[in-house]
Amino acid sequence: MLGVGVSPGIAIGKAWVVKEENLSITQQSTRTPTEEIERLNDSLVSVRRQLEQIKERAVRELGDKAQILDAQILVTQDEELLGVVREHINAGKTAEAALESGVEFYAKILEGMDNEYMRERAADLRDVGGRIIRHLLGAKQQDLSNLTEDYIIVAEDLTPSDTAGMNKTHVLGFVTDIGGRTSHTAIMARSLEIPAIVGTKEGTSRIKSGDLLILDVAEGEIIIQPDSAQVAMYEKQRTRIEAEKQRLQKLITEPSLSLDGHKVELAANIGTPKDCTGALNNGAEGIGLFRTEFLYLNRDRLPTEEEQFEAYKSVLATMAPRPVVIRTLDVGGDKEISYLNLPKESNPFLGYRAIRVCLRQTDIFRTQLRALLRASTFGNLKIMFPMISSLDEVRQTKRILEEVRAELKQEGASVSSEIEVGIMIEIPAAAMISDVLAQEVDFFSIGTNDLIQYTTAVDRMNEGIAHLYTPFHPAVLRLIQTVIENGHKSGIWVGMCGEAAGDPALIPLFLGMGLDEFSMSAISVLPARELISRLNREELKKKVPEILQAGTAQEVKEKMGALGY
Amino acid sequence: MLGVGVSPGIAIGKAWVVKEENLSITQQSTRTPTEEIERLNDSLVSVRRQLEQIKERAVRELGDKAQILDAQILVTQDEELLGVVREHINAGKTAEAALESGVEFYAKILEGMDNEYMRERAADLRDVGGRIIRHLLGAKQQDLSNLTEDYIIVAEDLTPSDTAGMNKTHVLGFVTDIGGRTSHTAIMARSLEIPAIVGTKEGTSRIKSGDLLILDVAEGEIIIQPDSAQVAMYEKQRTRIEAEKQRLQKLITEPSLSLDGHKVELAANIGTPKDCTGALNNGAEGIGLFRTEFLYLNRDRLPTEEEQFEAYKSVLATMAPRPVVIRTLDVGGDKEISYLNLPKESNPFLGYRAIRVCLRQTDIFRTQLRALLRASTFGNLKIMFPMISSLDEVRQTKRILEEVRAELKQEGASVSSEIEVGIMIEIPAAAMISDVLAQEVDFFSIGTNDLIQYTTAVDRMNEGIAHLYTPFHPAVLRLIQTVIENGHKSGIWVGMCGEAAGDPALIPLFLGMGLDEFSMSAISVLPARELISRLNREELKKKVPEILQAGTAQEVKEKMGALGY
Repeated sequence: MLGVGVSPGIAIGKAWVVKEENLSITQQSTRTPTEEIERLNDSLVSVRRQLEQIKERAVRELGDKAQILDAQILVTQDEELLGVVREHINAGKTAEAALESGVEFYAKILEGMDNEYMRERAADLRDVGGRIIRHLLGAKQQDLSNLTEDYIIVAEDLTPSDTAGMNKTHVLGFVTDIGGRTSHTAIMARSLEIPAIVGTKEGTSRIKSGDLLILDVAEGEIIIQPDSAQVAMYEKQRTRIEAEKQRLQKLITEPSLSLDGHKVELAANIGTPKDCTGALNNGAEGIGLFRTEFLYLNRDRLPTEEEQFEAYKSVLATMAPRPVVIRTLDVGGDKEISYLNLPKESNPFLGYRAIRVCLRQTDIFRTQLRALLRASTFGNLKIMFPMISSLDEVRQTKRILEEVRAELKQEGASVSSEIEVGIMIEIPAAAMISDVLAQEVDFFSIGTNDLIQYTTAVDRMNEGIAHLYTPFHPAVLRLIQTVIENGHKSGIWVGMCGEAAGDPALIPLFLGMGLDEFSMSAISVLPARELISRLNREELKKKVPEILQAGTAQEVKEKMGALGY
Repeated sequence: MLGVGVSPGIAIGKAWVVKEENLSITQQSTRTPTEEIERLNDSLVSVRRQLEQIKERAVRELGDKAQILDAQILVTQDEELLGVVREHINAGKTAEAALESGVEFYAKILEGMDNEYMRERAADLRDVGGRIIRHLLGAKQQDLSNLTEDYIIVAEDLTPSDTAGMNKTHVLGFVTDIGGRTSHTAIMARSLEIPAIVGTKEGTSRIKSGDLLILDVAEGEIIIQPDSAQVAMYEKQRTRIEAEKQRLQKLITEPSLSLDGHKVELAANIGTPKDCTGALNNGAEGIGLFRTEFLYLNRDRLPTEEEQFEAYKSVLATMAPRPVVIRTLDVGGDKEISYLNLPKESNPFLGYRAIRVCLRQTDIFRTQLRALLRASTFGNLKIMFPMISSLDEVRQTKRILEEVRAELKQEGASVSSEIEVGIMIEIPAAAMISDVLAQEVDFFSIGTNDLIQYTTAVDRMNEGIAHLYTPFHPAVLRLIQTVIENGHKSGIWVGMCGEAAGDPALIPLFLGMGLDEFSMSAISVLPARELISRLNREELKKKVPEILQAGTAQEVKEKMGALGY
């Protein structure tokens, strides 16, 4: 059976299939409305307490990602929802029937909103609603907290409260019927480093509890009831992966040097302060991209300056003296924030996002810059602006930064005087005028994900044209080379923080082009360091022009292959 | 009062305000259902006849754009709609009440579809529904066919049947409350060369019938009850525009030569075969872009090979021996074709469109290519492929073209052997590898509208970020120069068919860069020819490198200004 591998590794073990019980809900109550409301309130209190306990555990295990549970706790206190539920009860319904109607009513509205965030809220609402109804009916919760043996969990989908309540020490892997790379299950699994395959469509119908399973995440494959030869083969493979991991561990404290002694920096991309642990454990020499969106997502108002300050300070202090590149808010595009009321757009990737939002809604931007500058004394801060497409934007951005700095100085706050200011190069226009832009900033970081998307006019989330999206497109590679050359001509360093930076098939080429910093998922750092230690930078440099003569992505790959990469 | 100027010129005259009468509709019928159904059928027949008459007039005046009326005639025969209406009648309603309910029911469904085409169908449905209801009630139709004096028509919006039924000889201009550049009113007005300003929001509430109006389309301004000095000033301006038009008429048969004798080609962009008249009347030396989408839009199934053949043949024969560049289907993006069932996409501009559709749904493509090749003997055909982003696509496309040619040869059809094959350069990736692509094709045509959009990551339809969309962005201009240089290095000609090609502020720069062909709206051809006759190409060529050193769009404009352009 195939699915989408979303958290790497190999898992071998018995299946635990989570099936939703069919709850039988009585519609008309034989109790008085007052009694039903009392039942409802009791269950609300209990479920809130359950969720708070789950959240506590989740905070320990998942860090900031546990915020998802806050949204769920809020549901138990949602007066708009509860008002409707009480109305149904007053009309003679049981508390569970009233709740079911109320939840469905609001969940349908949220689902209809054509907004990823709202659809997630609909899932939360149903998740909590089900939990309360099960409590009302005295039915068992699906919290999987009592696992006493090792299992691979198989479910239609795992809700945040399912995964948060789970006894993780006994979880070997996850398989779900639905979901993709950005589903809750996927995010949680990666964060816990547990192998997971999602979107199998038929996992729960084809797998029975107790079946032996093998999860081969690299291939997205689930083998049900493998024979002993298969088990032996995958165990060998798992052992090899483990051994390789051990071997790479020795490189953790080593510098990143090519065979001929050329030094580069291998940094990690992170999403929350908690991710620093993973970055350090994987030998990252710094943070090349700290996405600050987590502060803004999954909540109902803007984060305060103080909240932001604490987050930035925490990352800077944890990583010090290593460099930390913090990217200012990159909202819009596929990242919607409901309380900002951003316009609904026909082509959000070509729309009002990132620096475009910050330069118009400058109050949001100034708050973030204040927090960043105040945190700057706790470590080695570099500030990076996303989605720059023109020199005007760079100048405006720098002007606002200087205004904020002056303001803080006047307030007597201490601000580092060593902060580097850089921009993402992720729009073709920025790459094409990178000679001009390089004179205004301290560094570039090439965002390959967006750069490929705009250069080739291919939405990277659009599966229908996925074959056209490739970092090997010679046009993309030529733009990257232009950016590196232009950066170096102006004496600034050039990094890369898109997914291509961690791709072993491309690292030789970027090394040859002279890329100074490679920022990637923490787990890619050590393999990249090992790879680079085997590469001769000067030789690669000589090969670059020939490779860039290729007409197609395939030809690029062939030329790289002919050189032995 | 301000609005969006959508059809150029100056109009001065009295207002005729079209107000919707409030029709009073009786719900419950005192007649039998059989009698009501008879009333309905009578009105359906009459309205169908009205619409057919309107269509006849429209075909004469508007050509293929009259197809809009076909969709309206279909409404009067829509059995799904009429079934619902008859049900309402059988339940005791009057024919008019039943029709109103039925129309609203389907119009709401169509509107909810989040699909531009379907929303237009909703408007058609309401338009025809209103017409039938007015007929049932014996109310006057808003057909404006009895105008006996000259008027500027002011309306909330003008429906296709309003404009088609109108006595155009007495129409000086249009003002509407709603709509934009692509509204029916805008398209019709441009086609009839009648000045129009749309989207005024408050036209019908601020203007009274009989008010004197001045429409200054260039400024998007409507002056209500101007004083005599204003009238005199605008009359002078109108006279000047007329005189300028006369003066330019002399250039119709002249070649397009710069002051120093460098020859370029000035061609027209057209949307339907009827537009050839305008192209010839305006001195176009060829068609630089024939968009073939009109064949596919506003209908419910694919056009046959025969229909296409006739259209291509007509354009080729009319323009012969002048060159005609026909672009293959560019569907997707903002151009939806409901019967193709293209996927709903989050970012259609970065999605499944144009050549991407043609290379997957090759049956559609092959039919078009067959029609094109068969028509090739009737004139000077050049075939152009849109949205090319890679060399692979060019090779696949050419392979299919050769297969179709071989097939036709085998069938004994005659096909010209002189057909040039070219591609649009409208994706940054294509511009970046134009050296490679130039070796595979006979010409390039730069599509600036999309090229700007992708290079700067700005949806050109998104008003919220319109300030970032500019052809003066140095990144865009550098890409254009790269394309021209690479084309010439391989000995092929390079044209441009985006809006920038007709922009007098940019023509000097493109002439300096060496652009060979400029394709634009027909009405821009003569002014462009006049402008080019005053430009020294060799001098401009020397200035290009300096202009492309500019860092911002503003700086480009300033440098051009300093040179006197």
